[in-house]
Amino acid sequence: MLPDFFSYKNGSLSVEDVSLGELADARGTPLFVYSREAFLSGLKALENAFRDTRHLICYSVKAASNLALLKLVADNGMGADIVSGGELHRALKAGIPGGRIVFSGVGKTKKEMSEALDAGIFMFNMESAGEMAALAEVSADKGLVAPAAFRVNPDVDPKTHPYVATGLRESKFGIPLGEALDLFLEAKKLPSLKIIGLDCHIGSQLTDAAPFRDAVTILAGLLSDLKTHGVNIRYLDIGGGLGITYRDEKPPSPEAYAAAVTGIASGFPGLTLILEPGRSVSGNSCVFLTRVLYDKKTPAKNFAIVDGAMNDLIRPSLYGSYHRVATVTEKSGGEIPVTVVGPVCESGDFLAKDRPLPPLEPGELLAFFGAGAYGFSMSSNYNSRPRAAEILVEGSTHKVIRARETYEDLIRGEIPA
Amino acid sequence: MLPDFFSYKNGSLSVEDVSLGELADARGTPLFVYSREAFLSGLKALENAFRDTRHLICYSVKAASNLALLKLVADNGMGADIVSGGELHRALKAGIPGGRIVFSGVGKTKKEMSEALDAGIFMFNMESAGEMAALAEVSADKGLVAPAAFRVNPDVDPKTHPYVATGLRESKFGIPLGEALDLFLEAKKLPSLKIIGLDCHIGSQLTDAAPFRDAVTILAGLLSDLKTHGVNIRYLDIGGGLGITYRDEKPPSPEAYAAAVTGIASGFPGLTLILEPGRSVSGNSCVFLTRVLYDKKTPAKNFAIVDGAMNDLIRPSLYGSYHRVATVTEKSGGEIPVTVVGPVCESGDFLAKDRPLPPLEPGELLAFFGAGAYGFSMSSNYNSRPRAAEILVEGSTHKVIRARETYEDLIRGEIPA
Repeated sequence: MLPDFFSYKNGSLSVEDVSLGELADARGTPLFVYSREAFLSGLKALENAFRDTRHLICYSVKAASNLALLKLVADNGMGADIVSGGELHRALKAGIPGGRIVFSGVGKTKKEMSEALDAGIFMFNMESAGEMAALAEVSADKGLVAPAAFRVNPDVDPKTHPYVATGLRESKFGIPLGEALDLFLEAKKLPSLKIIGLDCHIGSQLTDAAPFRDAVTILAGLLSDLKTHGVNIRYLDIGGGLGITYRDEKPPSPEAYAAAVTGIASGFPGLTLILEPGRSVSGNSCVFLTRVLYDKKTPAKNFAIVDGAMNDLIRPSLYGSYHRVATVTEKSGGEIPVTVVGPVCESGDFLAKDRPLPPLEPGELLAFFGAGAYGFSMSSNYNSRPRAAEILVEGSTHKVIRARETYEDLIRGEIPA
Repeated sequence: MLPDFFSYKNGSLSVEDVSLGELADARGTPLFVYSREAFLSGLKALENAFRDTRHLICYSVKAASNLALLKLVADNGMGADIVSGGELHRALKAGIPGGRIVFSGVGKTKKEMSEALDAGIFMFNMESAGEMAALAEVSADKGLVAPAAFRVNPDVDPKTHPYVATGLRESKFGIPLGEALDLFLEAKKLPSLKIIGLDCHIGSQLTDAAPFRDAVTILAGLLSDLKTHGVNIRYLDIGGGLGITYRDEKPPSPEAYAAAVTGIASGFPGLTLILEPGRSVSGNSCVFLTRVLYDKKTPAKNFAIVDGAMNDLIRPSLYGSYHRVATVTEKSGGEIPVTVVGPVCESGDFLAKDRPLPPLEPGELLAFFGAGAYGFSMSSNYNSRPRAAEILVEGSTHKVIRARETYEDLIRGEIPA
């Protein structure tokens, strides 16, 4: 089963109506290839699932940050969840109005706070007493009032990779639940802050709805306490974290996800939910396309050495992530275990280990699925490799939405003297 | 014990004669700060240790690739070990002549081979039969003869992190020892190749000389076999891999390293050793300098949230690497366990866990040692964070050798329409 909008047509794996074989010939490899329709349908499925609940979708920019994708978000009236000044710059550039931007993250600098205030963003999600003090100071200095929420850490185990579990007690994220009420009351006294929201985000790539329900249940208790103490919360930001199918995971549907979180929220009339989907929108909207350079059989392994590498897609190395891989040319049978590695000079540079694949010839193309989230956005120039191009497919047309980097790009800003 | 050329002067941690406190005020944070003298002394210590053996030092560009560092290599008459066309571009730009460049790596493209032939590089280290065929084809098409070696995999355990162990049987690197002789003989028949070398590289961050000796011993056996079969090897490339002190490791001195590998080589008159040091030269020549944004005490942890993050220095996340950390302001006593994390929105974003440090105030500076190898060269724009600046200190002067990236740099090449 391939993700929606990806299929074999006339023997070639295609994104919408564009053959990846033809695309690679036209644009070179490696490439990140997005389906416009897949990305949009991810956004719209969530929008639809939450149609009976007052809500705002703020797409999580960090998952896939290309301006062309953010423009799709903007054009559909949705907002952005940002975590840096750089993401603010991107969101604004793509046409997402400040009033639909939520600023998350544990380490906002005062400069970034100032930029976000200038942009008139919708809400700051504060994560510590120190940040509250800094934001109050920056907004007071500007004679402004910063709309703010606290991110609370509900200590719910999302049962995901430790690096993307963010709601546990040991986490750097959020305010411990037991300290939240006091901090809200303290914040309420600060004239340069306006407390409007309560936020949580328990982790990423969740494939079970129960932790979401647990987290919202805990937050509902806090919402009631806050109301009792005169703190009126209008926005409940439930973060992101909805998983996708990389291998055989069965994440909750948008409807099941909505059912898990909206029931409890409906006990608070006037409350608006903020959703911060990233991976669930972009993840399966994109393949990473790479060409086999060499096949190499050693006594221990069958290697396919490809022109894509860990600098392009670091998830397998960093998280041990599994990305499905398929040949672009449709083949059947005769599979052997193949380990797909890149040209980067370390053993950590692998994309897939011991996968059943037909024997691969140099020149053959491979597509890695699920490359749309934390794919290009995490890529680097390690081994002085220019970053790959990004392509957006719409029907039978394709356009470059980010040019392949050149050797000159690698040394930009360096002064040899 | 701090690395050479790093010391506290007048209460401030300094690189050579430059106070990191003043530097941070002048240049902002985060910063990679290199000591010119530390980098040079690393090169010269190796040069000196091998003075009685015919050799060429080819600095491993991937460890730290800045043009200013490569210019130091060039100015000292040394060469470069490159692994990509991008690194070739850098090496040439910095003034390293093609005749002192060795091209390593499992996945050279034909385009990269062509560029390297045009540059007249010294030697291609081939890693598979497929690559041999490709190089023979590219050089024949150009009417040239490519100087070449095979990288042989001696199956020696370097006892290092699995991601940087490269000489094991399961590795993607090199030719299995048992297949090497046949492949050399095959290559010798190809008129567009000239076989001049034998190469190996068993891994990175080795802290024991024994695996180097073992590997060279194995290669010496192959050298004899090759000679018997009429293949005259003039260059023995022993790769890199010499470790450094990150915590309390005691890597062999350059002299001990030389002693381990030169004795065996001396049995082959006329042989020149090629060395490919990277980490041992650049690693402890640089600190990563970052400023505390917030201190955050939770019931489980004392966090210092700093303005540097995993996008700047990914080694702790990717390899679980330990980097020593110190306050820039000299302090004594009153230490508590502090976990240093960055602003990036994942739990994998940490720089140090539970380290004894004095209580940290916002605004305070921290220096992470050993940041010169696989530091900036692995950095990314994850979370749309502009990459840090690089600074080179010489005595009491400092200059920017790579400008801090801007928000505009983040979106260069993107086409939103």
